Amino acid sequence: MKKVKAGVIGVRGFTGEVLAGILLNHPNTELVYVTSRVDKPVPLSEIFPYLEKKTRLLCEPFDIQKAVKCDILFLSLPHTVSMEFVPLLLKAGKKAIDLSADYRIKDMNTYYKHYKKQHTDTKNIAKAVYGLCEVYKSKIRNAKLVDPPGCYPTAVLLAVLPLFKENLIKDNTLYIDGKSGISGAGRKAKIEYHFAELQNNAFAYKAFAHQHVPEISQAIKDYAKVGPNIVFCPHVIPAARGILVTVYGQLKKNTDVQGVFKRFYKNKFFVRLRNRLVSLKDTSFTNFCDIGIKQHNKNIIITASIDNLMKGAAGQAVQNMNIMEGFNESQGLV
Amino acid sequence: MKKVKAGVIGVRGFTGEVLAGILLNHPNTELVYVTSRVDKPVPLSEIFPYLEKKTRLLCEPFDIQKAVKCDILFLSLPHTVSMEFVPLLLKAGKKAIDLSADYRIKDMNTYYKHYKKQHTDTKNIAKAVYGLCEVYKSKIRNAKLVDPPGCYPTAVLLAVLPLFKENLIKDNTLYIDGKSGISGAGRKAKIEYHFAELQNNAFAYKAFAHQHVPEISQAIKDYAKVGPNIVFCPHVIPAARGILVTVYGQLKKNTDVQGVFKRFYKNKFFVRLRNRLVSLKDTSFTNFCDIGIKQHNKNIIITASIDNLMKGAAGQAVQNMNIMEGFNESQGLV
Amino acid sequence: MKKVKAGVIGVRGFTGEVLAGILLNHPNTELVYVTSRVDKPVPLSEIFPYLEKKTRLLCEPFDIQKAVKCDILFLSLPHTVSMEFVPLLLKAGKKAIDLSADYRIKDMNTYYKHYKKQHTDTKNIAKAVYGLCEVYKSKIRNAKLVDPPGCYPTAVLLAVLPLFKENLIKDNTLYIDGKSGISGAGRKAKIEYHFAELQNNAFAYKAFAHQHVPEISQAIKDYAKVGPNIVFCPHVIPAARGILVTVYGQLKKNTDVQGVFKRFYKNKFFVRLRNRLVSLKDTSFTNFCDIGIKQHNKNIIITASIDNLMKGAAGQAVQNMNIMEGFNESQGLV
Amino acid sequence: MKKVKAGVIGVRGFTGEVLAGILLNHPNTELVYVTSRVDKPVPLSEIFPYLEKKTRLLCEPFDIQKAVKCDILFLSLPHTVSMEFVPLLLKAGKKAIDLSADYRIKDMNTYYKHYKKQHTDTKNIAKAVYGLCEVYKSKIRNAKLVDPPGCYPTAVLLAVLPLFKENLIKDNTLYIDGKSGISGAGRKAKIEYHFAELQNNAFAYKAFAHQHVPEISQAIKDYAKVGPNIVFCPHVIPAARGILVTVYGQLKKNTDVQGVFKRFYKNKFFVRLRNRLVSLKDTSFTNFCDIGIKQHNKNIIITASIDNLMKGAAGQAVQNMNIMEGFNESQGLV
Repeated sequence: MKKVKAGVIGVRGFTGEVLAGILLNHPNTELVYVTSRVDKPVPLSEIFPYLEKKTRLLCEPFDIQKAVKCDILFLSLPHTVSMEFVPLLLKAGKKAIDLSADYRIKDMNTYYKHYKKQHTDTKNIAKAVYGLCEVYKSKIRNAKLVDPPGCYPTAVLLAVLPLFKENLIKDNTLYIDGKSGISGAGRKAKIEYHFAELQNNAFAYKAFAHQHVPEISQAIKDYAKVGPNIVFCPHVIPAARGILVTVYGQLKKNTDVQGVFKRFYKNKFFVRLRNRLVSLKDTSFTNFCDIGIKQHNKNIIITASIDNLMKGAAGQAVQNMNIMEGFNESQGLV
Repeated sequence: MKKVKAGVIGVRGFTGEVLAGILLNHPNTELVYVTSRVDKPVPLSEIFPYLEKKTRLLCEPFDIQKAVKCDILFLSLPHTVSMEFVPLLLKAGKKAIDLSADYRIKDMNTYYKHYKKQHTDTKNIAKAVYGLCEVYKSKIRNAKLVDPPGCYPTAVLLAVLPLFKENLIKDNTLYIDGKSGISGAGRKAKIEYHFAELQNNAFAYKAFAHQHVPEISQAIKDYAKVGPNIVFCPHVIPAARGILVTVYGQLKKNTDVQGVFKRFYKNKFFVRLRNRLVSLKDTSFTNFCDIGIKQHNKNIIITASIDNLMKGAAGQAVQNMNIMEGFNESQGLV
Repeated sequence: MKKVKAGVIGVRGFTGEVLAGILLNHPNTELVYVTSRVDKPVPLSEIFPYLEKKTRLLCEPFDIQKAVKCDILFLSLPHTVSMEFVPLLLKAGKKAIDLSADYRIKDMNTYYKHYKKQHTDTKNIAKAVYGLCEVYKSKIRNAKLVDPPGCYPTAVLLAVLPLFKENLIKDNTLYIDGKSGISGAGRKAKIEYHFAELQNNAFAYKAFAHQHVPEISQAIKDYAKVGPNIVFCPHVIPAARGILVTVYGQLKKNTDVQGVFKRFYKNKFFVRLRNRLVSLKDTSFTNFCDIGIKQHNKNIIITASIDNLMKGAAGQAVQNMNIMEGFNESQGLV
Repeated sequence: MKKVKAGVIGVRGFTGEVLAGILLNHPNTELVYVTSRVDKPVPLSEIFPYLEKKTRLLCEPFDIQKAVKCDILFLSLPHTVSMEFVPLLLKAGKKAIDLSADYRIKDMNTYYKHYKKQHTDTKNIAKAVYGLCEVYKSKIRNAKLVDPPGCYPTAVLLAVLPLFKENLIKDNTLYIDGKSGISGAGRKAKIEYHFAELQNNAFAYKAFAHQHVPEISQAIKDYAKVGPNIVFCPHVIPAARGILVTVYGQLKKNTDVQGVFKRFYKNKFFVRLRNRLVSLKDTSFTNFCDIGIKQHNKNIIITASIDNLMKGAAGQAVQNMNIMEGFNESQGLV
């Protein structure tokens, strides 16, 4: 069986950790290189003690000479950092899957506005394929650089693209309420994320201002050729992982939305259409996006659930790799 | 200092428990009678062991002969059960604060639709004052029977009444996303509420169909004289208590919404207007409703946070008692 | 590759659920039969919605005619229920791995005392091998009926057997403090397990009286030929899964306990000796037992951590199957 | 009613926060001064937004000129920091209750070993009364400087002092397993305390080496005149607050331990003797210490539960103030 040599740049965050876990068990992958900002090589099982006896891999400081041993590299780095690494990898002829937002946003003013840094690798942006597998599979197949959607955009786009594609939404306006477990904010030592602070807490933040809104709008425009009005308010809930989005809006006319979605997602393995509203548990620790629709006259409510670290990050990245490498799309993911 | 004799019918649920706690510490109240479906009298501190040494009160099976020792009774009973007790208490000349929905819904078809039982005490419905203190204070002052709003209606109405009162909302349409801790569902032994099931879970339910929607609409119609279109989807999040509602909609024209709320809630002690979006922690274990507003052109997002067992139930009930008895409105509640 | 046909009797509990998950992914297993107390066959993915698209298996009412399609059956049933099923399976020539305590306790008075029922299949008790793989591997290899240790006995025995084998413990007395996530109590709808009740709670129970104490003592006697004095107090902590045991005692004389354990667990894949005290996270979702030892003069403290649903139940059961079937011991478990 | 002017030095930690809450509601106290390491005065309700409308108090940088406005000051500071403030306050004739360990340990080598700093105020150590109210009430009554026990020592000493006082314990040896919610570690931004890391985790630490062991031993020696052998292993469990200790040991001879405790704690309001093992919930948010004893021949298991922020810190500090000021011991605490 063909095995590609894979590497993870930035293995110590939540996403890097989950990526390493998937790749260690993936039948078509050999994980040969993992890096982090460590001073010197340290066993990966020292960073994640539960991996003891499962791997002897060292976590090393990044070194391009070593990175090129890999066929494909996953960049699990903070936004604005990935763009320092990607050009090196592409130049060396490597495939790269970047989990930051660095190659998602095509408009540089928007990028600067939300990520507060001038982009330093603009020439590769056009080459980057937006890795929403259910929609861009054929482009992904031939890509050298893929940038999968952010966690919220993944859930939101899967919940709304069929609606925009069919031009069903009144005023192209949707109200989207996002709920995310705290791992979505990254493995950071902040008082707000302290167990005693977050337990029994939940909060709204960045209403109208979240960096995922332009990403969502750009993808809708690109795919459905409509300029949407997305009103989005994310919330943190006291869960470790998982995203649940609830979409509110009105149809232009009475339509069988369930039927629209059924056709749209026919043969899309990782989207499951439910006959009920969905829960985080439906998709916990899986790479599925579950969608549940309720309709009352022209009012619709659509719920979508993903595991933010799987379909919203590491799992979707591996799904992209599977497509790029010609493996079964679900290989290593079920 | 004047002390009223208070009783709690149904002390064993979450709300009854919190009510007992407030009333035991309330400077103007003597808690003299608490009941539950027990076979024989049992110390309240056996049911809630942390109350040992704090009270010697017995929890007894309900007995109207004993209930009439009280000046005022709190009914913390399941919907459709309260209406068996209220007429007995009113007949005996007692004041009653009913925490069920039995006297909130004025339309009997609506009541039957949502609570699946014919109302058996229709004649007292008209007498019941809807106990939303910030709005109906003067009616509450003279009431014999008060039925405070449900937990979601409390948060939602405080978040939207100023908008409807001023007739600011386009199409009178608001989309409301509710998030509640699990105590909102009552102290019931159900697998869905099991610690291992709810931890890291969150789920949407009863979209378009929640019993609180007609209650909310009725109150808006009654107070603001407009027929609203309320699209509401409640969610359970993995928290023990607390409600956070996020309201989405469009203004008819650009308006200073913060200013509207500031005027509306001037001198309303238990509503706090924030300059930011709100969190559950803002109001945990308090009787406050905190409101945070974000506006972007004509789009508005309003967040409101309450402790569902305090402002959403027991605390608000005591606030009503304070008004009915002529005490300081915040007595025993801060 | 050889594939055995496996069945799970009682798939709906926590253990049955985890078992089904492991067996669906096990490279040498075909999961062909799962049962529960259902009225009629229902898709397993209806019971566990996250399994949708992963399996089309039906969960059926138990039927011995169908059970015999399997080569090996896992009984994930309540204590006192397994003994009704095991004789049927053995008679049909099937291998059985029973996760209840029914074939663990060899003394019928002890069994009756703790499980409150007369044993109805005494003749098969002697045939049952105690499935503690690290110690009884050769017996397990040829067994038809295996009864792996309970969750606490697994952690405790791995933490103390080397000590008793080498006769190191003063007065053969150990004090054992157990801490377990709530899944250890089974998937039951009880108020004590309600999210709002268990969150921020922790409690001790059954001091001196836990049914696992005679099981532990019997195993020590059987293996190390000493009659131990085990003082055990289990606790529930507000976690979904995991067991952490902390063992206190005194050595007869100063001994290099770490060295003793190192020799004892040489080549035992699923035991990991740490140079520090251990945590639940060390073993979460794994089949490992991690052990950490601290010694101060003759006083010793030994901590052991397992995932109660993996090494403490489903994982260990599969480890037993791997041995019985001649597979690699860790097959499907890493 | 007499009101003392109280101040809290270090109001921003968990303990300072709870102290402020108690003192704001205490009928005999006026909280007039709270400090923290802030650059300039900031409303306390900005630090703790739930206090909005409840207090207009400013949180200020410490200033001895302002501190002396108070009659009594609570120092809720890190260990090794309190000793900089206490001499200033005593010199100004103020009463001080220090919640750090700075005046608890009487042996300076021990202090240095555990707190890694030379003590700079040795002359006041002898004046400090160890604020275990149930035992040292008469000394506390006349003290100028009180240093209440740490959280673990509070629970442990209340659970074991009666045993040592009566000289009941074989070899004076007890094994003590401690379990604490994470607030015991202070409000610190550390990855280990991150919600996603601590949820479902539990870990042992500092076996034999915890700084509370010498404090416990010193108190036993001082009070019961025996040199105990305390083997202590603390654990963090995934709870926000609460301490549960489980004590294991053997009696010299069969004794009615329950009777011994009953006599010892007669008329001690804040100790409740239970007829069963105890839970965190028994004492959550209260100032009680609940004790539950199980005995099997000469083996004993004693469980004690406190709220670490109440009886283990802020509550006990206020209990000390009540005694020092001649108030009812439970004033403001029930």
